[in-house]
Amino acid sequence: MIAEKDDPKSPCIEREGGRPDQKIVICGGMLLTMVEGEPPIENATIVVRGDRIVEIAEGRCSGVHGGELIDAGRCLVMPGLVNAHGHTAMTLFRGFADDLPLKEWLFTKIFPAESSFLNPDSVYWGALLGCVEMIASGTTTVSDGYFYQDSTAQAFQRAGLRALLAQGVIDFPAPGVPDPKENLTAGRAFMEKWSGASDLIRPGLFCHSLSTCSEATMRGAMQLSEKFDSPLQIHLSETEGEVMEIATRTGKRPVFYLDSLHLMTERLIAVHGVHLSDEEMDIIGRRGVGVVHCPESNMKLASGVARVQRMIELGISVAIGTDGAASNNNLDLFREMDAAAKLGKVYALDPTCTGAAVVLKMATRWGAGILGLEKEIGTIEVGKKADIIVVDLQRPHMVPLYHPMSTLVYSANGGDVKDVIVNGKILMKDRRILHLDTEEIMWKVRELSNAISIG
Amino acid sequence: MIAEKDDPKSPCIEREGGRPDQKIVICGGMLLTMVEGEPPIENATIVVRGDRIVEIAEGRCSGVHGGELIDAGRCLVMPGLVNAHGHTAMTLFRGFADDLPLKEWLFTKIFPAESSFLNPDSVYWGALLGCVEMIASGTTTVSDGYFYQDSTAQAFQRAGLRALLAQGVIDFPAPGVPDPKENLTAGRAFMEKWSGASDLIRPGLFCHSLSTCSEATMRGAMQLSEKFDSPLQIHLSETEGEVMEIATRTGKRPVFYLDSLHLMTERLIAVHGVHLSDEEMDIIGRRGVGVVHCPESNMKLASGVARVQRMIELGISVAIGTDGAASNNNLDLFREMDAAAKLGKVYALDPTCTGAAVVLKMATRWGAGILGLEKEIGTIEVGKKADIIVVDLQRPHMVPLYHPMSTLVYSANGGDVKDVIVNGKILMKDRRILHLDTEEIMWKVRELSNAISIG
Repeated sequence: MIAEKDDPKSPCIEREGGRPDQKIVICGGMLLTMVEGEPPIENATIVVRGDRIVEIAEGRCSGVHGGELIDAGRCLVMPGLVNAHGHTAMTLFRGFADDLPLKEWLFTKIFPAESSFLNPDSVYWGALLGCVEMIASGTTTVSDGYFYQDSTAQAFQRAGLRALLAQGVIDFPAPGVPDPKENLTAGRAFMEKWSGASDLIRPGLFCHSLSTCSEATMRGAMQLSEKFDSPLQIHLSETEGEVMEIATRTGKRPVFYLDSLHLMTERLIAVHGVHLSDEEMDIIGRRGVGVVHCPESNMKLASGVARVQRMIELGISVAIGTDGAASNNNLDLFREMDAAAKLGKVYALDPTCTGAAVVLKMATRWGAGILGLEKEIGTIEVGKKADIIVVDLQRPHMVPLYHPMSTLVYSANGGDVKDVIVNGKILMKDRRILHLDTEEIMWKVRELSNAISIG
Repeated sequence: MIAEKDDPKSPCIEREGGRPDQKIVICGGMLLTMVEGEPPIENATIVVRGDRIVEIAEGRCSGVHGGELIDAGRCLVMPGLVNAHGHTAMTLFRGFADDLPLKEWLFTKIFPAESSFLNPDSVYWGALLGCVEMIASGTTTVSDGYFYQDSTAQAFQRAGLRALLAQGVIDFPAPGVPDPKENLTAGRAFMEKWSGASDLIRPGLFCHSLSTCSEATMRGAMQLSEKFDSPLQIHLSETEGEVMEIATRTGKRPVFYLDSLHLMTERLIAVHGVHLSDEEMDIIGRRGVGVVHCPESNMKLASGVARVQRMIELGISVAIGTDGAASNNNLDLFREMDAAAKLGKVYALDPTCTGAAVVLKMATRWGAGILGLEKEIGTIEVGKKADIIVVDLQRPHMVPLYHPMSTLVYSANGGDVKDVIVNGKILMKDRRILHLDTEEIMWKVRELSNAISIG
């Protein structure tokens, strides 16, 4: 049974952020606003009222009275991280099948396990575990694509994370959608249910890939996305095999094929983008399509290395994502940033590529932009939504501190996050997540995994 | 001033491990012995007396009386990790100069900073900070090469870690050795002082590279290493430029050149090994030279990717190292294992390469073997030294648990280590390091860094 299955449209739900009269004061930390060109502000005071940032000041917060105090002494305050691609409920399959050939992994392990063990209950608990992990590692916004997304939405609502949650669309029998002819209908039903239902959750669609979605499905998904004004996600050019398959079938490389269908628009989010020709990158740049880089998944599945530095030079917006826990196997965006920076360097054989500042932008502002949220989140500015994390600098592996961005990307990990605020609500304080029963969630997923491991 | 500068030969020092009568009982965990072919043992009891493991049993430890109890319920018990290459005191320069071209990084940042700011005091505190970080992330044995190694040895002795500590040898004026003609004399003095002085610390030499050490220096270093029966470390074939330089100067690629000097022996530890031809690998394999893989440093400095999978197929012993904190920027071997596994896969475009089981061997048994310590550490077996870590599995990012090795390599990070025992002495219990004042150490390094950042 799913505990607390809320009606998303019920007016009683008060989990979505700070109440209008609620005030939080974050005091004494070094503030990294992530606004272009702004240096860190020492000893900053950030005041949150309701769900928004209402004041940012330098110096001690002695003049600010009332409100809940977050002590950020010897800490760094920054925008919450944006995990721009994941399949959150796949925590269920974390470590289930590793070090296998890709096809064996997918077709003999993951797909059968998904087919047998995904249901509204397992997806709910798997997603909730992923939410706990992401809160505990400083992620405040997530873009997720999976099946049984209503359960994922319930989990995110309970967790209080901001999210673009996309119902998976695939032209094969899928968990919760046994008849592929119903895939868009199921997507529409999910979008109708969750559209406008929550300040934090935005519904959308996620086309699995060009290998598994027909032209008609792709067009239909885009029409629905336009109708609901939400981004459309797709795994694009993740493997060389996929590129060859599309080229053989359509006579065009994937980006050219999508462009011929008029689907290369600002609404599209291209996930992975590992195997893109220069010409494809030009089109991506000209059409304003955002790309989500998932370095650890691409490494672990041996898909290849996305040419992120080149994309950035072309002015393409690149975000960063963990992908699912089955191909990572953690959802820690600090580690993902580190991997993105280092992989970009060694791939280009140039240590100046994908530096800490760029990678931090990918995980904050650019991530927000790709999800269409750049006006609300991604930086710490007065008037923006209060999605803020406090990172403890007082740890042996974070000392000394010469350049905060280097420390965040190359030294920190998610466990260094001390406090997490989403939409003006404190989700974690002094590393304690107060509103979720972490023990219960771990126990539930462990129980579910016992059945999965027997198979 | 260095606090507690101990005479290493004083009989009063009792920091080196468990007293003969001391007993520790580790109870209730899942034991991964890392002995080839042994499956995990559920609910294991491990009894330590003095500095050694004296009993391993399956089942509850109700029959064991007395001794200090380590509760390993819902935890995994395994051999402490071996960091087979580092420059521990370089924590001083963690994050000091990142994302720069290699030559600028080395010649305008690191070398000048080392020249100006390294002294016995700064090396002591920098090394001690690195020791704290490594204890806190489950490393129990370290192979270190740097300057002012007497200070490093004092720090390791205070920290209680097992180590091969090698005095840096280079044909340039170096910190503590302004006259390069004295480089081997300084090395000999260090080895004489520390040889036999400590059960945990073994002195040795570290030739910086073939670019910076002459034939005479290399031969002299090997002679001294033979005399003191210790391994000889060298940075070998880290960059393509280095390989070209040696080939131009000697007419031979580095491994052939070293072999012509009769220096390719089991005593040599080749660090990095990024740019090795097939023929060079064959020689490494035939001569029994161990290789230390430092994936994160190689990535961050854009040196290239070592062909680890190929080395393993050739039967070469490969260990794993973090390198210094200035080129990583952390000393967490769990993260290094993850990077090694994933980088090996994407480089070979084969997800079956460098799997979790292999990478764990690199960080335990094989690391011990390369340091000549395979009879004492690297596995959990009765009669071996008690270098043991307990890893908490009860964390959101570690749930569920299908395959312990996958969980350790792909999900865990150093912060998940709960308890650390070295040589039968508990260095960390329930994440508290009791014998070191972590706050003081961080404060000292922060003070030192203030001078460094001003330059």
